[in-house]
Amino acid sequence: MTTKRTVQSHYDIFIKDCRILQSGEDGYFLATGSIGIGNGRLLSIRAEAHGATITADRVIEGDGFIAMPGLVNCHTHGAMTLFRGLADDLPLMTWLEKYIFPAEAQFVSEEMVYWCTKLAAAEMLLAGTTTVADAYFYMDAATRAYQESGMRAVLGHGIVDFPAPGVPDPSKNIDTVARFIDGFPDSSRLQPAVFAHSPYTCSAETLARARQLARDKQVPFFIHLAETKMEQTLIGAGDMSPVAYLDSLGILDSGVIAVHCVWVSAADMDILAHRGCRVVTCPESNMKLASGVAPVAAMLARKIDVGLGTDGCASNNDLDLFGEMDSCAKLAKVHALQPELLPSKDVLNMATSMGASCLGLTDIGALQEGMRADLILVHCRSPRLTPFFSPDLLVYGARGADVDTVIVDGKLVVEQGVVLTMDVKEIMGKVRTMAGKIRESHGK
Amino acid sequence: MTTKRTVQSHYDIFIKDCRILQSGEDGYFLATGSIGIGNGRLLSIRAEAHGATITADRVIEGDGFIAMPGLVNCHTHGAMTLFRGLADDLPLMTWLEKYIFPAEAQFVSEEMVYWCTKLAAAEMLLAGTTTVADAYFYMDAATRAYQESGMRAVLGHGIVDFPAPGVPDPSKNIDTVARFIDGFPDSSRLQPAVFAHSPYTCSAETLARARQLARDKQVPFFIHLAETKMEQTLIGAGDMSPVAYLDSLGILDSGVIAVHCVWVSAADMDILAHRGCRVVTCPESNMKLASGVAPVAAMLARKIDVGLGTDGCASNNDLDLFGEMDSCAKLAKVHALQPELLPSKDVLNMATSMGASCLGLTDIGALQEGMRADLILVHCRSPRLTPFFSPDLLVYGARGADVDTVIVDGKLVVEQGVVLTMDVKEIMGKVRTMAGKIRESHGK
Repeated sequence: MTTKRTVQSHYDIFIKDCRILQSGEDGYFLATGSIGIGNGRLLSIRAEAHGATITADRVIEGDGFIAMPGLVNCHTHGAMTLFRGLADDLPLMTWLEKYIFPAEAQFVSEEMVYWCTKLAAAEMLLAGTTTVADAYFYMDAATRAYQESGMRAVLGHGIVDFPAPGVPDPSKNIDTVARFIDGFPDSSRLQPAVFAHSPYTCSAETLARARQLARDKQVPFFIHLAETKMEQTLIGAGDMSPVAYLDSLGILDSGVIAVHCVWVSAADMDILAHRGCRVVTCPESNMKLASGVAPVAAMLARKIDVGLGTDGCASNNDLDLFGEMDSCAKLAKVHALQPELLPSKDVLNMATSMGASCLGLTDIGALQEGMRADLILVHCRSPRLTPFFSPDLLVYGARGADVDTVIVDGKLVVEQGVVLTMDVKEIMGKVRTMAGKIRESHGK
Repeated sequence: MTTKRTVQSHYDIFIKDCRILQSGEDGYFLATGSIGIGNGRLLSIRAEAHGATITADRVIEGDGFIAMPGLVNCHTHGAMTLFRGLADDLPLMTWLEKYIFPAEAQFVSEEMVYWCTKLAAAEMLLAGTTTVADAYFYMDAATRAYQESGMRAVLGHGIVDFPAPGVPDPSKNIDTVARFIDGFPDSSRLQPAVFAHSPYTCSAETLARARQLARDKQVPFFIHLAETKMEQTLIGAGDMSPVAYLDSLGILDSGVIAVHCVWVSAADMDILAHRGCRVVTCPESNMKLASGVAPVAAMLARKIDVGLGTDGCASNNDLDLFGEMDSCAKLAKVHALQPELLPSKDVLNMATSMGASCLGLTDIGALQEGMRADLILVHCRSPRLTPFFSPDLLVYGARGADVDTVIVDGKLVVEQGVVLTMDVKEIMGKVRTMAGKIRESHGK
């Protein structure tokens, strides 16, 4: 928040007199001011009143709204919206082997990924998420979906050592991803990544080749790591933990984004910190699948960047990062029986600025002049957000449904709770038709 | 769901062609049909198409909606909406002694309880909660608030052994509640109750007298019980657990509704089951205050009726029972590392039919002909509820904001997300003014 005047007085979008989430030494606070947006960036964030010299293509009245950075969902499988609520309350292996893997084998196609990723994008945008790291297959289709949605996205193409959607021959898994990266469209919002599924679905050789591919192409490397207690047994590396195992393969460095990290010892966390790895926690998925509780506060204490993710819809069952913040903070507290653990300011940081760092994105995640203009307006004149004493309520009270307006890369993509970039009714219709086929085949 | 025709063909409200939540042997399912409401009751729930013989004062098109019983919030402190987000992330005793108790001493008044309870009622109605058990002070004012709101409510007047809001002289605590019950208005929706705060804020004598008062007046008896690990030390009854202590005083029987029951041993649960006590669990409050995880599945296995509560806004920080269902199911799973534990059907039951039983209300909580007409319409044509494979998604996906229409006792109280019974803007304005005074006194 500055009070100086810039020379520019015409904006693409000008948000008048809202409350603006800012961070200071003691955490977050709300300042009152106006926001000028142009050329995809936050050009002006000012506290003082503006006179008639300001013009804008579009003026938004900010009264009753809190402007905050768009949320950053550091891990999901967008297309799995199709499997939302297909099978709940089941042991992990029954869930995977009886429902999810067969459904993926039968129903995942390029068309499915395109439409179901668009549904995910619509759901996320409506809930105030402006950036996502999506990890799945048929990622060309997912890229088109996010391109059209207006969202910012990091798209990790999956690698496993068994036949996968779009990659029937596992010996082609690395080449497929190399081609995906080479053919990636030029975009200010989108970038490709490598997603090696896990240490138990990829051999040591595959992991090493996948890591090398990401290094060669200079893209982020995502991997599910230490999600369940049984993973150590599954990888078959003796006494080595999954983290120690990856480290022994030379996989771990600052380009690695390790997702879950539930079953990590102090020694594992020291390795992750020492190697400069980033971590993503997905508390609601870990709760629903009963995977366990990630030691988020202990990782933050080691200065590891920890982002927040929803994981896929099949294990959550929504993509609301506001709800995820709430669950993350509360789960840490009850697990440790320490109410002061993982305060809301830490979780808000994880879902915004630190989440962006986690994905290697340095110019989003905070409302500061010069940064890319990814921001949302939260409607706070509702009973559930009254009174509003502090930004803590963005974690413990606000939900995706409270988001009114969403701007990504300086462009308005959601206005008064309506997606402007896509035909949401058409998307829902397409997905419902696909779901109907699953229902027939499952007799549900 | 029946297919017979009744003689009545004119209804107060007729909901056409919606999906209707019904329960069968294997849990819940969705049937398609129409609902006729008259004289405050569900007169007709039918699967077949209706001809021109049906007339109604009000016809609601049900396409795109799921009709389900209104949710039952078995424990809150409604007026504490004023303290929503006043102080978060603090150890329990700091939170209580530095923030909540001083704020209550300074800011709780009859007027505060009236307006802040109205705010709670508005928030709950908008989120699909049609029945609440509210436990606080100045309950005459709360009764007026709920009377005007159109909600169904059980109103427990508080009893503690220190000066409390509206009861400056603790020696008058029992008499005050007796007068509250004697003066309670005649109402089909409202009933009074006794709320003895806890075994550590009421002496053995006070507990016994409070219990006797509830027996004499034939009203429910609520008490916070075994909420925190330290409670056993606080009550000073040696080796006796809080449950065993209350049992030794002759307090426990089927008229008792014990709230929290986090720190209960197998022996404690056996006592609660044997005495026929009902239990209320408040998982989000227990998470946020780091109280612990209540053994809900173990209590259900003992055939104890367990209801679901949000607790007050100061420790949650919302009154959304949909979110509470989700948290309840997920917390049980991750705590036990068992994903099949506490399936969504159990939690849906706790928030509806079993919750109603918990409060001694036998004619609400399910959509069956002859029951009181407390029902809600959930809008399920949104991205976040697409696809919709089964009622499980009402737990793992739906949130209060998805509720479109609310009917209580046969009367429309929320329509298209707008409260019809109260001026919500006026209420929010009043509460904001009160919050401004707290802010001034706290320098927040």
